[in-house]
Amino acid sequence: MRILVVNVNTTESITEAIAAQAQAAASPGTEIVGLTPHFGAESIEGNFESYLAALAVMDRVLSYDQPYDAVIQAGYGEHGREGLQELLTVPVVDITEAAASVAMLLGHRYSVVTTLDRTVPLIEDRLKLAGLDTRCASVRASGLAVLELEENPARAIESIVGQAQRAVKDDHAEVICLGCGGMAGLDRQIEESTGVPVVDGVSAAVTLAEALVRMKLKTSKVRTYAPPRAKRIVGWPVAFAK
Amino acid sequence: MRILVVNVNTTESITEAIAAQAQAAASPGTEIVGLTPHFGAESIEGNFESYLAALAVMDRVLSYDQPYDAVIQAGYGEHGREGLQELLTVPVVDITEAAASVAMLLGHRYSVVTTLDRTVPLIEDRLKLAGLDTRCASVRASGLAVLELEENPARAIESIVGQAQRAVKDDHAEVICLGCGGMAGLDRQIEESTGVPVVDGVSAAVTLAEALVRMKLKTSKVRTYAPPRAKRIVGWPVAFAK
Amino acid sequence: MRILVVNVNTTESITEAIAAQAQAAASPGTEIVGLTPHFGAESIEGNFESYLAALAVMDRVLSYDQPYDAVIQAGYGEHGREGLQELLTVPVVDITEAAASVAMLLGHRYSVVTTLDRTVPLIEDRLKLAGLDTRCASVRASGLAVLELEENPARAIESIVGQAQRAVKDDHAEVICLGCGGMAGLDRQIEESTGVPVVDGVSAAVTLAEALVRMKLKTSKVRTYAPPRAKRIVGWPVAFAK
Amino acid sequence: MRILVVNVNTTESITEAIAAQAQAAASPGTEIVGLTPHFGAESIEGNFESYLAALAVMDRVLSYDQPYDAVIQAGYGEHGREGLQELLTVPVVDITEAAASVAMLLGHRYSVVTTLDRTVPLIEDRLKLAGLDTRCASVRASGLAVLELEENPARAIESIVGQAQRAVKDDHAEVICLGCGGMAGLDRQIEESTGVPVVDGVSAAVTLAEALVRMKLKTSKVRTYAPPRAKRIVGWPVAFAK
Amino acid sequence: MRILVVNVNTTESITEAIAAQAQAAASPGTEIVGLTPHFGAESIEGNFESYLAALAVMDRVLSYDQPYDAVIQAGYGEHGREGLQELLTVPVVDITEAAASVAMLLGHRYSVVTTLDRTVPLIEDRLKLAGLDTRCASVRASGLAVLELEENPARAIESIVGQAQRAVKDDHAEVICLGCGGMAGLDRQIEESTGVPVVDGVSAAVTLAEALVRMKLKTSKVRTYAPPRAKRIVGWPVAFAK
Amino acid sequence: MRILVVNVNTTESITEAIAAQAQAAASPGTEIVGLTPHFGAESIEGNFESYLAALAVMDRVLSYDQPYDAVIQAGYGEHGREGLQELLTVPVVDITEAAASVAMLLGHRYSVVTTLDRTVPLIEDRLKLAGLDTRCASVRASGLAVLELEENPARAIESIVGQAQRAVKDDHAEVICLGCGGMAGLDRQIEESTGVPVVDGVSAAVTLAEALVRMKLKTSKVRTYAPPRAKRIVGWPVAFAK
Repeated sequence: MRILVVNVNTTESITEAIAAQAQAAASPGTEIVGLTPHFGAESIEGNFESYLAALAVMDRVLSYDQPYDAVIQAGYGEHGREGLQELLTVPVVDITEAAASVAMLLGHRYSVVTTLDRTVPLIEDRLKLAGLDTRCASVRASGLAVLELEENPARAIESIVGQAQRAVKDDHAEVICLGCGGMAGLDRQIEESTGVPVVDGVSAAVTLAEALVRMKLKTSKVRTYAPPRAKRIVGWPVAFAK
Repeated sequence: MRILVVNVNTTESITEAIAAQAQAAASPGTEIVGLTPHFGAESIEGNFESYLAALAVMDRVLSYDQPYDAVIQAGYGEHGREGLQELLTVPVVDITEAAASVAMLLGHRYSVVTTLDRTVPLIEDRLKLAGLDTRCASVRASGLAVLELEENPARAIESIVGQAQRAVKDDHAEVICLGCGGMAGLDRQIEESTGVPVVDGVSAAVTLAEALVRMKLKTSKVRTYAPPRAKRIVGWPVAFAK
Repeated sequence: MRILVVNVNTTESITEAIAAQAQAAASPGTEIVGLTPHFGAESIEGNFESYLAALAVMDRVLSYDQPYDAVIQAGYGEHGREGLQELLTVPVVDITEAAASVAMLLGHRYSVVTTLDRTVPLIEDRLKLAGLDTRCASVRASGLAVLELEENPARAIESIVGQAQRAVKDDHAEVICLGCGGMAGLDRQIEESTGVPVVDGVSAAVTLAEALVRMKLKTSKVRTYAPPRAKRIVGWPVAFAK
Repeated sequence: MRILVVNVNTTESITEAIAAQAQAAASPGTEIVGLTPHFGAESIEGNFESYLAALAVMDRVLSYDQPYDAVIQAGYGEHGREGLQELLTVPVVDITEAAASVAMLLGHRYSVVTTLDRTVPLIEDRLKLAGLDTRCASVRASGLAVLELEENPARAIESIVGQAQRAVKDDHAEVICLGCGGMAGLDRQIEESTGVPVVDGVSAAVTLAEALVRMKLKTSKVRTYAPPRAKRIVGWPVAFAK
Repeated sequence: MRILVVNVNTTESITEAIAAQAQAAASPGTEIVGLTPHFGAESIEGNFESYLAALAVMDRVLSYDQPYDAVIQAGYGEHGREGLQELLTVPVVDITEAAASVAMLLGHRYSVVTTLDRTVPLIEDRLKLAGLDTRCASVRASGLAVLELEENPARAIESIVGQAQRAVKDDHAEVICLGCGGMAGLDRQIEESTGVPVVDGVSAAVTLAEALVRMKLKTSKVRTYAPPRAKRIVGWPVAFAK
Repeated sequence: MRILVVNVNTTESITEAIAAQAQAAASPGTEIVGLTPHFGAESIEGNFESYLAALAVMDRVLSYDQPYDAVIQAGYGEHGREGLQELLTVPVVDITEAAASVAMLLGHRYSVVTTLDRTVPLIEDRLKLAGLDTRCASVRASGLAVLELEENPARAIESIVGQAQRAVKDDHAEVICLGCGGMAGLDRQIEESTGVPVVDGVSAAVTLAEALVRMKLKTSKVRTYAPPRAKRIVGWPVAFAK
């Protein structure tokens, strides 16, 4: 089984970290292919960048020319998953939703700890649309930008642990979701510090994607995610991919 | 006052129709500028096309080089409004939300009549995110594609009237929203056939945008719609606009 | 166009302040007529007074003998708007709902700052019924009574600013609605102090009413707001209006 | 124990029917006093009449000069209960809420069968505000006006039974609430025809009021229902009561 | 009228306290029979114990061989009420739901003060399923185990009063529900300390059960609570009741 | 990895069918152990039987004396999962929730097709508690009892297909969940007949359980699912297991 794990930003080192985390979570025999978009922002921290990433992810997947069994969109709270589901027949799993689905199997309520405060409403909105918000105790921001996670891991852990602890104590979260693709790999450390299960979205998405493939389940094509109708389109996909 | 009314698809005749409808609804002294995206699909009937349109609308507005006071995104149930709000300081009004806001001033519950069934979930999702879904009685599809509205107006009216009548009778709608930018101009005819107020989204958006400008109100910049942070971005806006 | 702006209490100076605010927000050519109820309380701070005001507003509008195009009920969180909508054919706009509708065009979540804590549940209930509560971050009380706003504007501003700042910081509001007709005119000062857009309900209602009139939209009469049936009624409107 | 049962309309025969139903449901030793408002409409079928009734009920109760232990507002879906709760210290029970509370003890979901279709949204709104709507399967209208219930009981029963049967079969209601004070006394007949428990609001309200009095529980006075503040009020209560 | 009040745990002294409280709340002529389960835990503070109690309560009621008119399940937030409703024809009242229903007649929002923090989610879940959660301001834990209430009443009162005061001040509760069968009898003391009405669940359930019996209302048997179908069952009820 | 798949009823042939379905869905190297409760009903079609099953499942798992990595409760809409989560440290997956979580990855809305109409509210309640109900289009009953599925598979398929088709056409479901453990194995046939993905709960639960085990995630023990406190318990587990 081959699973494409698509980074939402253009920072190669994040793609590599995500792919490594995905491979570690995968079953034997699953090949992970990490993809970096051909265009877009070096990190995604807001709606404009997220919309740009939505197209860039679709563009990147469509320009991948080998067979694959599932696609993971490895951005937290980002737009675009619905578009991929229209364009593809294989399952598409978003890490925001995967993490929440897994967290809900482990505790009564979960919290998400993400990067900047400005991305909190995006994550809340995605969880609401996905119908996975009812048992979300809170979405909390560490205050660190995406790229700072890479630059200063020690400070990142301290800050994320602090918010995770407040989520458990003040918001009654029983599970923590790591709300950023770039946080891959921090889960065990944070779990030790907080005493509650910590769900990494990339790992959750990989194992859910494997589950779907193993069950031979694909995206439903009868209504919302039916293939796009044939029509005249300007600037796609060439303009983006060149 | 100058208001940009941006079509979400690349069909110029629809831009013209929308702009005419907008101008008719505008106050004396308001100049309407209709804009057609430089790329994207000839009609928007699904998530992929809508995400593409989201970027195309942002691209088109940013490449407009004259001053303006407000922007209207003239697509029903489309993605992207949040991105425009980040990029701009002037008010941004989406016709889906404008129509619903106006409809809620006129009756206890409203319904939307749109084009194809596959776009119903997109509209429902946008209303849910906007927090305007509680009093929505139903979103109904006429079964006609966007471009068919132009090609066969008589059949379009018949079909839309039929769904509007069922919305009033079966779903207890007291107001009908015309759920497509391309329906601009049909409101009076349908109002006569159904006996309830019919809200055209473009007109609603124009008058709301004028209201915001007159009150000197602009998009809040403290959190969700703060300007994008300075960062390295590949392929924007040149790749799109050329 | 003539718009009636009806105060909910019997304090003439508040009517004058509201009417002045309304006129300032109105388009050229719109005539604002401020009306004071013939009976009721000097200020409205609770359910009993609000129910009394509901009738007094209906009575006052019905006893106005000139033509008019729209009516604004200028009380925050008050009962009665539905009754006016039954009795009249022209549009009726409540300032609570107008402010919320406008706020939702400007930011992800809004808060209301009102007068006494005891009126908070009334406002929350009206927003819930109007289906405009989903994106309401909080309704906060300044602790000042309605009439204190007039008597000590400096203290009022200080107190309202304090609550507005807490709404932005603690409740993640991105827009503030001024939750009292008597707060008309304070918006710009508070906007400067908080850095977020401040919506004055009277201004919002005037511009929305103008929008409805310009679009020739009136209250739907098919169900909830159908005209009262002909029947025997004792004590109306004579007892009230004499 | 003495309980005031206040009709919302001015039709004496309805007051008598309600009072008889209340007395039949009351415990030995409970005295029921039926009161008819001094002003208002002969039947309540809409918002204007309901707002007028809200004041008329408050006026009528305040002008009752004997001691009493609880008050029942015997109108279905009417405004005003909150005002009574402010003005009084004894418990106030609304029959709409009493019926729903009792129905929820008897089945998984309940439906309300009321009179005219135009009153359905009023009942839905009151149940929503009361937080008793989650398990409401539907509110259905028999199509008969309030006064027709008295004039043609046979037809009324047939029509109400028809809607009750549809509520059970189509909406999965397991309990039926009789949604009109004037339906008092029809419950047993309808129960036989539908096979599900039928809750009469007046009986429910009487037994709940007795329960509150027996537990020495009164309306909370700390916030929403605190007594009105001392202030200048014009036209109350004299103008109404004379 | 005879009402069975079934303790959920096996501590006889709690059964006695509950029965005494129930008798005090009952009307003259109502006989209260306190029952202790034949098996289960000495106190119920979690899901496993609650599920065990659910069966034990059903078992205990079925093994009671005298006639009775209603059954009260005297555990706060416990499982099992739906099972009793299937097995019996007489009304079944759960004290969690009874307390909430009564509280909602007395104030705009209510809070529950219970024992250990771990039981808070159970109570929240039961209120949610019952559709009585909308007006619940909070469920707060005193931090005392069930049996500590008996052992150290002074400390229990102090701790419960503290949480009740915070519920009123911080969560805007206007009514307090005592969230444990073992708290029966503390209501008046806590009411004096907090200034808001305090609802004891056992008393509420008794008076509601009396109301149902007086109205001759029984559990609906058409769907959810239809009698169990005839089928082969192993280990019931003998294994439990021996 | 060893996963216990616990039937909720005492019919061995159903246990065997479930275990076979589970083994077919499992990864190589996963051992499935099917367990049948020592007591309870031959099929579960209501609350009483479901509560009995809840205890029987806990009892059966506790009396299993080999090591295992996860437990699946293979009943649709049944009580008890929370109790297992308290008693165990390994992950517990309920097939109702597993199916819904998987379905939500595949389409915008899903429906459940179950056996008897009387079990519909149980399933709706479990989905509501699990916070997985928002995107549930409907829960439909085939009208066949659990054991009829085994006795007459042809008729079962016809009936289930009929309801699945109505779910897709009338309720806009895009995915179907098979709402009964005993339906295991019918998924492919029904998928062909309806054109939408069909999720078998047992398969979904197995793959999710494997995912949790692979990620080394266990049930959170900080609050809701903390181990039961040490206390005196009568009749557990001996009385049930003997």
